[in-house]
Amino acid sequence: MADQQVRTGEDRRPTEIPAIRWEEPPEGPVLVLLDQTRLPAEEVELVCTDASALVEAIRSLAVRGAPLLGIAGAYGVALAAARGFEVDDAARALEEARPTAVNLSVGVRRARAAHQAALASTGDPTAAAVATLAAARALHREDAEGSVRMAAHGLALLDELLPAGGHRVLTHCNTGSLVSGGEGTALAVALAAHRAGRLRRLWVDETRPLLQGARLTAYEAARSGMAYTLLTDNAAGSLFAAGEVDAVLVGADRIAADGSVANKVGSYPLAVLARYHHVPFIVVAPLTTLDPDTPDGASIEVEQRPGYEVTEIAAPQVPVTGAGGGIPVAPLGTQAYNPAFDVTPPELVTAIVTEAGVVSPVTAEALAALCTGSCQVATG
Amino acid sequence: MADQQVRTGEDRRPTEIPAIRWEEPPEGPVLVLLDQTRLPAEEVELVCTDASALVEAIRSLAVRGAPLLGIAGAYGVALAAARGFEVDDAARALEEARPTAVNLSVGVRRARAAHQAALASTGDPTAAAVATLAAARALHREDAEGSVRMAAHGLALLDELLPAGGHRVLTHCNTGSLVSGGEGTALAVALAAHRAGRLRRLWVDETRPLLQGARLTAYEAARSGMAYTLLTDNAAGSLFAAGEVDAVLVGADRIAADGSVANKVGSYPLAVLARYHHVPFIVVAPLTTLDPDTPDGASIEVEQRPGYEVTEIAAPQVPVTGAGGGIPVAPLGTQAYNPAFDVTPPELVTAIVTEAGVVSPVTAEALAALCTGSCQVATG
Repeated sequence: MADQQVRTGEDRRPTEIPAIRWEEPPEGPVLVLLDQTRLPAEEVELVCTDASALVEAIRSLAVRGAPLLGIAGAYGVALAAARGFEVDDAARALEEARPTAVNLSVGVRRARAAHQAALASTGDPTAAAVATLAAARALHREDAEGSVRMAAHGLALLDELLPAGGHRVLTHCNTGSLVSGGEGTALAVALAAHRAGRLRRLWVDETRPLLQGARLTAYEAARSGMAYTLLTDNAAGSLFAAGEVDAVLVGADRIAADGSVANKVGSYPLAVLARYHHVPFIVVAPLTTLDPDTPDGASIEVEQRPGYEVTEIAAPQVPVTGAGGGIPVAPLGTQAYNPAFDVTPPELVTAIVTEAGVVSPVTAEALAALCTGSCQVATG
Repeated sequence: MADQQVRTGEDRRPTEIPAIRWEEPPEGPVLVLLDQTRLPAEEVELVCTDASALVEAIRSLAVRGAPLLGIAGAYGVALAAARGFEVDDAARALEEARPTAVNLSVGVRRARAAHQAALASTGDPTAAAVATLAAARALHREDAEGSVRMAAHGLALLDELLPAGGHRVLTHCNTGSLVSGGEGTALAVALAAHRAGRLRRLWVDETRPLLQGARLTAYEAARSGMAYTLLTDNAAGSLFAAGEVDAVLVGADRIAADGSVANKVGSYPLAVLARYHHVPFIVVAPLTTLDPDTPDGASIEVEQRPGYEVTEIAAPQVPVTGAGGGIPVAPLGTQAYNPAFDVTPPELVTAIVTEAGVVSPVTAEALAALCTGSCQVATG
């Protein structure tokens, strides 16, 4: 089950509000999540005492973003182990909570493997729980370190592609510290450019239906002091046409072996616009997002989410009115098509930036070469 | 000033709720508008007793859509004349209410020309007012007749381009009976296909920021019994990639002499996607939308609207909370880029359908030929 604790922004400095943290109060270990559905209006923490509360938090997008889902999944397995629940059941439920983001599955499997290995070697459930938590913490730490390296590689690539500097970067969805053990993926690159004095403007796509751009990326950009401007996803076309976009930076939820990139719905139209306007389209993702077991884009399962996310606007600060808990904006009974992700084929991706380096042009061979060694752990 | 009168949907049949109508109660003539900002939650009528109330209704988008703005502008001038206000002042204020839609200006000028001519020939303000109203009514009637012809031309074009039938049509914003004296422009074509049994699916872009697709097109589609599905503007890319879109049908707010089309923001990205996927992109608009005085796309003034339309969600059914009267979805102080329109160059437009016929390919010469005679009236 999950409890809520509300903290106002004044209580803590920005960097003190982590998206996820493990705590061990006297009542037993818990996983504390910053409820991302409530941002930016409120900073509310969800306290999960078991894996099923975490599954619910993952489904409702209280916790979201590819790298963070991996970390959350690993901690979820550690939580089940530490609380004496059935670890395999918890792992299965967590893996199935969202189908497209491969990182969730990778994180869960890694923690579960640590649990199994420790149990086999020691026969002691407590020691196995400790080993599982250590595996989750290691993934968390590695993700933070990966962010630093992705940011460095990504900034070097931007500087190389855009020697004139004064980068005007368009980003979609949310890929910053809210999705990561560190500073994130695509947004970490933009943040590095900002700190280096080379970010002229961050264009923030609002990212319908759930407005992660407006709610979360704008929140992170504002806190970091970046020069940012929000726009409807629709308005990106006008920016490209006006020559106001130098590069597109997005994250990824799964990258197939051929380099096809599943990411938040709306990424593919940006890739097509970027190609039409000769603007680089850059994907920033940790190696855990590469999935050698998915051969191509057509093989990626795209999560279809409830229609009410489109027919209603989620606004936690106002009373619930619609069937989905939001404010109805379409006639009652309206059907909606609501894929959570879309798939961008490799030929539209200028480069994939990982912690191990940059792949450009994006080919199956180059990805496989980058993966050698590193991806063994990821897919283990 | 404007009064409100609320009518629930049960009182009247769908076809009985016109977007605009002239009434002459004992207290004097009024222009009654269906307040489109309140749909689909409520059917509220705004009663305008002078041109300044109409200007406010135009600015707030209570009345909107290129052809309807022309009709409203003409009636607004007629209202000023009938109520004894200064006609030139009213005409100027109405023309300036929104800069991009040429039809508004065309409608205002046509009514004003009728007023001036009648005043010059009779010297009688009452007779001039009668002549002005007659001009507005004529524009209203012509627009309705034009809808019928656009629908026929558009359906013939669809059938020609898509001989297999079972048309799956994607549309953006709202272009039906709510924007017209008749059944509209692009949506009138889809409706004709529906009545002919050849519309398999209407894909309705929600059309951020003001959700005219979700609120208005879905409302009209539901009332007409069309098979429609709503989607975020973002999700159109996935539909194209899946081969689920046979044609795009949109309206226009101004068409430059070279065939550049200003339409609701989000149209241009659809045109780029349509080209990338070899899908026809069809613009449906009356001749009054053609503007021979605007040479090209770069010369079209694009209206920039307030940022709060993006940083807040307008939801008339819930209490006002943000500075713009909506529900805040972005951090306070967030700047937004909010162009109301974008411009699609002629090379991305497969065809322009007007009441006088179809132009394809779209060239300055073909448009000029179509315009000969007809456009004299429009730009007079």
